Amino acid sequence: MKIILNSILTATCCFLLTSCNTSQAPETLNTSEPSHPKLILTANGVNSIKSQLGKTPLFDKSLEETKAEVDAEIALGIDVPVPKDFSGGYTHERHKKNFLILQKAGVLFQILDDEKYAIYIRDMLMAYAKLYPTLPVHPQTRSYARGKLFWQCLNDSNWLVYTSQAYDCIYNWLSKEERDVLENDLFKPFADFISIENPQFFNRVHNHSTWGNVAVGMIALVMDDDSLLQRALYGIKNVNLDANMKDNDGGFINKDGKVGFFANLDEPFSPDGYYTEGPYYQRYAMYPFLIFAEALQNKKPELKIFQYKDSVLLKSVKTLINLSDADGDFFPINDAQKGMSYYSRELVTAVDIAYHFGGNDPQLLSIAQKQDRVVLDDSGMSVANDLQLNKAKPFVKSSIELRDGPNGDQGGIGILRNEPMELVFKYAAQGLSHGHYDKLSYSMYEDGNEVLQDYGLARFVNIEQKGGGNYLKENTTWAKQTIAHNTVVQNEASHFNGEYEIGSMYHSEGYLFDIGNRNLQVVSAKEKNAYPGTEMHRTMAMIKDSSLTKPFVLDIVKVTSNKPNQYDFPFYYLGQLMQTNFEYSAPKSLAPLGAANGYQHLYSEGKGISDGNNSTLNWLLNGKFYTLTTVTSQGDELHLARVGANDPNFNLRRDPALILRKKNSKDALFVSIIESHGTYSPVSELAINAYSNIKKLEVLFDDSYYTAVAIWTKDEHSKLFIISNTNNQKTQKHQISINGKEYQWTGPFTFQNIK
Amino acid sequence: MKIILNSILTATCCFLLTSCNTSQAPETLNTSEPSHPKLILTANGVNSIKSQLGKTPLFDKSLEETKAEVDAEIALGIDVPVPKDFSGGYTHERHKKNFLILQKAGVLFQILDDEKYAIYIRDMLMAYAKLYPTLPVHPQTRSYARGKLFWQCLNDSNWLVYTSQAYDCIYNWLSKEERDVLENDLFKPFADFISIENPQFFNRVHNHSTWGNVAVGMIALVMDDDSLLQRALYGIKNVNLDANMKDNDGGFINKDGKVGFFANLDEPFSPDGYYTEGPYYQRYAMYPFLIFAEALQNKKPELKIFQYKDSVLLKSVKTLINLSDADGDFFPINDAQKGMSYYSRELVTAVDIAYHFGGNDPQLLSIAQKQDRVVLDDSGMSVANDLQLNKAKPFVKSSIELRDGPNGDQGGIGILRNEPMELVFKYAAQGLSHGHYDKLSYSMYEDGNEVLQDYGLARFVNIEQKGGGNYLKENTTWAKQTIAHNTVVQNEASHFNGEYEIGSMYHSEGYLFDIGNRNLQVVSAKEKNAYPGTEMHRTMAMIKDSSLTKPFVLDIVKVTSNKPNQYDFPFYYLGQLMQTNFEYSAPKSLAPLGAANGYQHLYSEGKGISDGNNSTLNWLLNGKFYTLTTVTSQGDELHLARVGANDPNFNLRRDPALILRKKNSKDALFVSIIESHGTYSPVSELAINAYSNIKKLEVLFDDSYYTAVAIWTKDEHSKLFIISNTNNQKTQKHQISINGKEYQWTGPFTFQNIK
Repeated sequence: MKIILNSILTATCCFLLTSCNTSQAPETLNTSEPSHPKLILTANGVNSIKSQLGKTPLFDKSLEETKAEVDAEIALGIDVPVPKDFSGGYTHERHKKNFLILQKAGVLFQILDDEKYAIYIRDMLMAYAKLYPTLPVHPQTRSYARGKLFWQCLNDSNWLVYTSQAYDCIYNWLSKEERDVLENDLFKPFADFISIENPQFFNRVHNHSTWGNVAVGMIALVMDDDSLLQRALYGIKNVNLDANMKDNDGGFINKDGKVGFFANLDEPFSPDGYYTEGPYYQRYAMYPFLIFAEALQNKKPELKIFQYKDSVLLKSVKTLINLSDADGDFFPINDAQKGMSYYSRELVTAVDIAYHFGGNDPQLLSIAQKQDRVVLDDSGMSVANDLQLNKAKPFVKSSIELRDGPNGDQGGIGILRNEPMELVFKYAAQGLSHGHYDKLSYSMYEDGNEVLQDYGLARFVNIEQKGGGNYLKENTTWAKQTIAHNTVVQNEASHFNGEYEIGSMYHSEGYLFDIGNRNLQVVSAKEKNAYPGTEMHRTMAMIKDSSLTKPFVLDIVKVTSNKPNQYDFPFYYLGQLMQTNFEYSAPKSLAPLGAANGYQHLYSEGKGISDGNNSTLNWLLNGKFYTLTTVTSQGDELHLARVGANDPNFNLRRDPALILRKKNSKDALFVSIIESHGTYSPVSELAINAYSNIKKLEVLFDDSYYTAVAIWTKDEHSKLFIISNTNNQKTQKHQISINGKEYQWTGPFTFQNIK
Repeated sequence: MKIILNSILTATCCFLLTSCNTSQAPETLNTSEPSHPKLILTANGVNSIKSQLGKTPLFDKSLEETKAEVDAEIALGIDVPVPKDFSGGYTHERHKKNFLILQKAGVLFQILDDEKYAIYIRDMLMAYAKLYPTLPVHPQTRSYARGKLFWQCLNDSNWLVYTSQAYDCIYNWLSKEERDVLENDLFKPFADFISIENPQFFNRVHNHSTWGNVAVGMIALVMDDDSLLQRALYGIKNVNLDANMKDNDGGFINKDGKVGFFANLDEPFSPDGYYTEGPYYQRYAMYPFLIFAEALQNKKPELKIFQYKDSVLLKSVKTLINLSDADGDFFPINDAQKGMSYYSRELVTAVDIAYHFGGNDPQLLSIAQKQDRVVLDDSGMSVANDLQLNKAKPFVKSSIELRDGPNGDQGGIGILRNEPMELVFKYAAQGLSHGHYDKLSYSMYEDGNEVLQDYGLARFVNIEQKGGGNYLKENTTWAKQTIAHNTVVQNEASHFNGEYEIGSMYHSEGYLFDIGNRNLQVVSAKEKNAYPGTEMHRTMAMIKDSSLTKPFVLDIVKVTSNKPNQYDFPFYYLGQLMQTNFEYSAPKSLAPLGAANGYQHLYSEGKGISDGNNSTLNWLLNGKFYTLTTVTSQGDELHLARVGANDPNFNLRRDPALILRKKNSKDALFVSIIESHGTYSPVSELAINAYSNIKKLEVLFDDSYYTAVAIWTKDEHSKLFIISNTNNQKTQKHQISINGKEYQWTGPFTFQNIK
């Protein structure tokens, strides 16, 4: 009964609020004393929130937590140190903490009407206004765009995005004189520094410049400075940057001249909401994208920012959730720190805003429920309210293809899911400066745990003792290199020779993505540019066959070239090796596997030569047994390898790999099955189904048109997977003869009994 | 109300049962048709259980799970294969499954009165009775006591312990003729085989013979065979075994001639309930000890088995729980597979029996609650009932010293606990054939996770593809060796030269164990025999000082010798190295650190030379930062090492270590602090307190009488820890002068401000 009453009240409030908002005369810029707050919180929104306090448990809990955190900081006193350190160091972390707390204090002042929060903000901002004019650029010189408070303009921009919100919250409370000091000594020069004085940072399409654009845009909206707002939305005019200039990560500054917030929406987002840098950076950029969109929606509703580009911002939030494993951890595509997840503060904001401004999708509520906190504004209240009304529905992550490129025509990411397995296949574009050279690579998960891993980045973000918390040189020499990934390496060189300029020109091509049959899901793509003269075609199928308990992955990589090459094909399995079916010699001392392109970071722990039968590797991970079964030809080399060579600072993890090597081959076909088949418990000490169920894997047919792979299981089932290598039409009829038997089917592939 | 009624009913039932039991005329052995079951289940107990079905949720749930499991096996049909495999292999696992299911089927027959379970048991036992007389010894030859169903008599004994219970449950239901077949063709020859035909297995003090004794004892009680029972309790008479004979693990068969079940109670258990082999094997032996005790209590109450040796069996259950970390995993002392815990089936039985027969300690109920199942007999019903009555209280694990040796005078294990830290210090006896050569070693835990690890065993128990699931040769060449542990190694040789004969003669001596002050807990012990002519004295303190957020460990090892030696002192930290404060050179290729005694399994990944200042190593594990600060002298070597050399089958984990080496020293003093001080989250990407709080650690004074260590923290606190090296009396007054200042205190140690 109480709930129903609440619901009616809420509905009435919402109606009243909406009426108020729309009946208000549109504000004119440069009005002398406009009503604040108006950026994220609004005067009406605050009243509505106040009226609902005590009725929405999740909002109340989040408010309580925020209050406790801010009160603790206020008790510690204000510290605005002279900038000195890299990330992880004291001054960096202090300034970072300051802006996070300032934003929260602003919200508390508005919601709780306690002046101590306004005083705290004013005093700290005044301290910044006193310090800022005295600052040279930051003493650390690593960045292509050094900031003043931080070692890079990126972090200065973070500061301004958050601090603008705090300023907005106490704007009316401050005197005109105080505002003048803050704007003239701090905010305006600050905004100019990260834009006009650093065009190589501001005038780009990159997550860095998204932060820069939004920082300038946010303070512009608070100060009602239209000229600054135009700069934020459309970039600095009349700046000519060298098209070949690069940043300190090796990325182009601005190759095609696109600039400003809208360009940062247009370019990196695909129509599917996939952000070309990958989910780790998409998460990072989500906060400025969505917080600024919320501000624009509040102040400039005529821009219809949430509808822009077919509602790409709203769509991208769900895309990002789909780019996470069963535990909510983002798949580490390109540079990405593992463990980052939809529990991050950026995603709390993103989910709340997407829910509130994106049509109240009840699936988003279940994510908010897991996050167990909301942002302290209208959108957070909306989420908390509807959770209280039990409107949440499970967020169902299904198999999905996410196209890359502004127009969705630059390859993509194919995710196959069949509980408990997840496969992430990458055939996307380069992904800007954070891209890895890993065309047609993949990773595989079970129950949210990596089984075959993508290494991720080589960096300990914000851990100062590891290279100032920044990218380590092993990120370039190892993590970005092709051999660090589960894909083909030709002649020990990375794709595009590891050259960003070349990689950025190309993308892989999706060939098919078919999830019509849950028990036979197939994704396939081609790459023709990674190695000139060589074409790679990879097909990955997630198959649930009645004779096996879990879905397995069938992996077919067809390589054709105009000359003989060496092909390396790694499997970055995680866990403890149990058994191989091939003999190998193990060295007494460990030497690197090669000299460059990532090979210098791999130790050779064993080398075997295939006798021409299938080669298998059986391993144990998290109480589960896995087996890789791969077709090998007589003379193929099998290298047991481990990451960690030439790593004097212990920046890399000592993870294992099996690398299959075919020497002096013009064409090559890699066919493998990866299978999760058994369990082990150290408590019961029972090993159940410790061995593979696959008896034999064989290529029955292979030419330029068709590839046919036979699978025999130990219980004597036999199946044949055939793919058409040239025709991906769903309606195309095929017929071929294999070992004297006719096979017929429609569409690009078939999986049927062997005749 | 219902609960109260239940309680009264239960109390009444118990009273009636007790009356019945005690008023019953004692059964005479060899009665022609005695009442069965009478071993674990009893006729009266079964009636009581039946009357309580549906009223005790945990019992009902356990019954339901057992029924589902047994029904599924019955549906699969009976398979009694000809023995062939090692553990992990089919025939081994099948026979193991058979005995586990037989026991459960017996219980189900009794409780559910469904004849299908009796038929299943009879048919399977008849299949065994047909097979058994045809069997030679098992074809696998590794064991010193080969079984018939399994590769070792140990597993055959497991079979008989469980199967006796099944036989008891259907004894009355079978015809006399059927019983004759089973007893003459199966049980009697089976009991004779594991005893008379294998005296080297049966006549020992060892977990193996405990199983053997109990197997014979259990079937004796079912068959009312007093001569067999005497054999079980007191061993085979008139057998002379060579005192120097050893088993295939390298352990003595029987050095001092003690035999039988009572000897196995007398010898390995200390008065504190510590089992000299360590908790992993104690857990394994708990089942036969307690199940046979329950049977003896039922059939031979006059033996007062639970009161035997000051109730050592009941005490040992709590001891075992105290030997587990915060998650319930047993500390891996000696040979031990990590992950084994009080969730194992043996501990479910042990906890239920200890609760029922040991005075209903409500702390045991909380363990049973975590186990979430009970055994299906009177003791399990008793636990389920009292849980239902909310009688559970938390099991509080405090700091505890567990003495080793039959009389508690052979050293021991000291466990220091102060949330969230746990320290396990070992100064016990050799621990029979499963003992490691690791005098004065330790391991350290936080929140139930290893921080400084004990490696455990080198074995994948029951995983056939790893050496038949048995001990791997690396268990001898690595896991047992001293260098594999966190203790001192002299001249690259293991304690006692790694010779079991010598190690078994000695034990370390506890010097002090003082937990009177929770914030200053100290354990100290001496070892004089590991290296003749050398004496080691280690003192470990867990200190919670007001200037640090968590308790830290201060570790002082004083080595004195009659000649110069090389001393190695390893720290097996787990996690990712962040930073060292010392320079080191890292090799391009990895070579083993040594040639023998475990050194052949360590790679050298880096070597530094101390400049005479403290050496520090900072690392990250499970989102927590740790720092080791250790006093080093100029010229001391610092080796960064990793396990895994000379391990062609990948039987070892690639875990890291720091090894401090002092060359050519007669005496040596190792002083270190291990500190948990910070956190990191890959979601917030915040590194909090990433650096140590210790500024300096210094030996201010050291002679044969006193050692004084000064600790300066970064917030300028300074403290002094002084220990008396020769007088451990609590009442002794001490006074020494250090740097011209007088320090006075009472008792063997003090921790006070520096003057």
